[in-house]
Amino acid sequence: MPALKRSPLAPARFPNALPVPGVEFAVAQTGLRYKGRDDLLCVQLPAGTTAAGVFTRSTMTAPAVDWSRQALKAGNGAARGLVVNAGNANAFTGAGGLAATRLTAERFAARLGCPAEAVMIASTGVIGEPLDADRLTAAFDGLDYRSSGWESAARAIATTDTFPKAASEGARIGGERVVITGIAKGSGMIQPDMATMLAFLFTNAALPSAVLQACLSEASERSFNRITVDGDTSTSDMALLFATGEGARHDPVTAPDDPRLDDFKAKLERLMIDLAQQVVRDGEGATKFVSVDVTGADGDAAAKHIALAIANSPLIKTAVAGEDPNWGRLVMAVGKSGARADRDRLTLWIGDQLVAENGARHPDYSEAAAAAHMKGAEIALRVDVGVGTGAATVWTCDLTHGYISINADYRS
Amino acid sequence: MPALKRSPLAPARFPNALPVPGVEFAVAQTGLRYKGRDDLLCVQLPAGTTAAGVFTRSTMTAPAVDWSRQALKAGNGAARGLVVNAGNANAFTGAGGLAATRLTAERFAARLGCPAEAVMIASTGVIGEPLDADRLTAAFDGLDYRSSGWESAARAIATTDTFPKAASEGARIGGERVVITGIAKGSGMIQPDMATMLAFLFTNAALPSAVLQACLSEASERSFNRITVDGDTSTSDMALLFATGEGARHDPVTAPDDPRLDDFKAKLERLMIDLAQQVVRDGEGATKFVSVDVTGADGDAAAKHIALAIANSPLIKTAVAGEDPNWGRLVMAVGKSGARADRDRLTLWIGDQLVAENGARHPDYSEAAAAAHMKGAEIALRVDVGVGTGAATVWTCDLTHGYISINADYRS
Repeated sequence: MPALKRSPLAPARFPNALPVPGVEFAVAQTGLRYKGRDDLLCVQLPAGTTAAGVFTRSTMTAPAVDWSRQALKAGNGAARGLVVNAGNANAFTGAGGLAATRLTAERFAARLGCPAEAVMIASTGVIGEPLDADRLTAAFDGLDYRSSGWESAARAIATTDTFPKAASEGARIGGERVVITGIAKGSGMIQPDMATMLAFLFTNAALPSAVLQACLSEASERSFNRITVDGDTSTSDMALLFATGEGARHDPVTAPDDPRLDDFKAKLERLMIDLAQQVVRDGEGATKFVSVDVTGADGDAAAKHIALAIANSPLIKTAVAGEDPNWGRLVMAVGKSGARADRDRLTLWIGDQLVAENGARHPDYSEAAAAAHMKGAEIALRVDVGVGTGAATVWTCDLTHGYISINADYRS
Repeated sequence: MPALKRSPLAPARFPNALPVPGVEFAVAQTGLRYKGRDDLLCVQLPAGTTAAGVFTRSTMTAPAVDWSRQALKAGNGAARGLVVNAGNANAFTGAGGLAATRLTAERFAARLGCPAEAVMIASTGVIGEPLDADRLTAAFDGLDYRSSGWESAARAIATTDTFPKAASEGARIGGERVVITGIAKGSGMIQPDMATMLAFLFTNAALPSAVLQACLSEASERSFNRITVDGDTSTSDMALLFATGEGARHDPVTAPDDPRLDDFKAKLERLMIDLAQQVVRDGEGATKFVSVDVTGADGDAAAKHIALAIANSPLIKTAVAGEDPNWGRLVMAVGKSGARADRDRLTLWIGDQLVAENGARHPDYSEAAAAAHMKGAEIALRVDVGVGTGAATVWTCDLTHGYISINADYRS
């Protein structure tokens, strides 16, 4: 398969990703699948680090998902390490697959002098291929751990990604500054469900695992769970948040709803939305970034359901690719979603252009103005369904020949 | 937009579609949208004709759907006429749209000397464009009604279809022969939900509307409701079944579960599956016809849900297009469906090839044999999810550059 061209929606440069006190990482080439590139990320975390995770709701979870979910529970949210490999998802690999994951955790734990349950594992790549844990863990030798150089970490976990993804924020907890830095990967098989593609978030805040979990779950719902590339949900989705507490001077916070967490939560959510949008901007074959805003729905869940019906409609995604303001397809998608909507009170916008209201095309609608908006790289679609106050925003990309080429023209 | 190339999956020739005693039809060019082709079908039915219908569950129904559903109810299932136009769906056209539909029915009814509610209306084509009922009904003048030549009728209702669709069956009711003939259209925006694209079915059986309705609903669930091209559900889906009673010599049948209906039901279902599969074979850009069989599910509804998750997965549809036996994507789709399934008891087949069982690749799996199956035009995917006895089959097609070209490259 030829190297993929960098997405036209990629950011101009890798962001300024801040070191997180206590977090040290290293990358390596295992040679398991990819040649000539790093495919292994190992992270060491100090004693006392807490962790939280959200995981795919797929019923076909990969062993790494099962392991990490269970390890978090068994260790009461304590974490000392993270191992991520790219190229082989070790999914649907039977009992041997789970043994490979366990062996990987045990061997990394032995080096750190911690229980295996303190090591989180993530694997991404092809499904159904047995993973050679001996070869993978052999790469643990001679690693060069550092606290900066996040770009190498983001590259090591990538599969069909065309650019490395990271984001960083400073936040205050009770007036004291902490840092949050995250990396993510994902490009196809993207419709995270209560979790994400892979994302790893690190902070030096000192927070109990239960508080971290609340922050992560809430922000996931408004970031990773609001994106779709192709409506396909991976067996291996996972987002983990680690808090080292190193250098944190804030007072102890023990309740997830403590108002001193407000800024931390806001910054975490902003960072995760940034990462989630980067995944969409790297959607396979994407040439347009699309925001779908739904208002006036019968609750926020209904709004999200309608927004996803729009964002996953092949007819809408191809119309966006073709720069065609084919708004009838928006009506179709609202209708097929099944969520309550009033045809005769429906209002539609493309960009700032009012397209239709009260169940029919607006007399002032200018197809030329809508077409001009569709020529841009950032497309805004908005629907008010006229039955309530529920609202949601979902982000997606267009469906192009590039997607077909990546997934059909080349044998994987 | 250039003329579309005939689907490579099209049948070799138009089927032998039998005349149905009592049914007379005519076609015409209204010039409303298409140039140089028929776009109007008018059908006259004798007094005493009964009718049944299934309609889209879209919440954004077109006026023709609202009209026909209501007219069937108001007239207690009596029908004397059918008017179908192609090119303009008259959907999302506000109060004016409903008035145009009503006017069309009234003017056709005046010619037949029957109530407007005895005329069913269907419209298909672009959404959001006002329909000029005066121009449409002007074409009622000078029509040449005939009882044969179904190919012209099937062509007159087509939009992006690349071949006309019809099927015909003889059936026995209590030993006496009746005829069933149906025509259909559909190519994109295809995932009928309790209904279909457009299909019109005619029989000379003499059956009360309630009996017809039961037969139609049951067969729809096993035919039109088991297909998908792109997962998008139209605002205008409708299937109507008319029974003229002309020349029928069978005894009266008044209960839907009368065993004398068994053969009629079986033939109706076979005919509707035939039409439904023709729609899939004309799926936009299709090069492969795909059967998805799911067994071992927690009920038939769960099996259908899983089968649709597979059939609508862009990653599976592109893998089929690329002739890639990428079975990991089947695991992914089962997992994302959310329906109960046991990863460690999952069994997969591609064609006759056992791919995986008990949660891992089978040791005898031959990628070469699976790849050879994928090179054919008829692809069979089968999954047993290992938790029950529910089963369902869904039919779909692949996702190709052709779909993108039809929906993105050309402005509609």
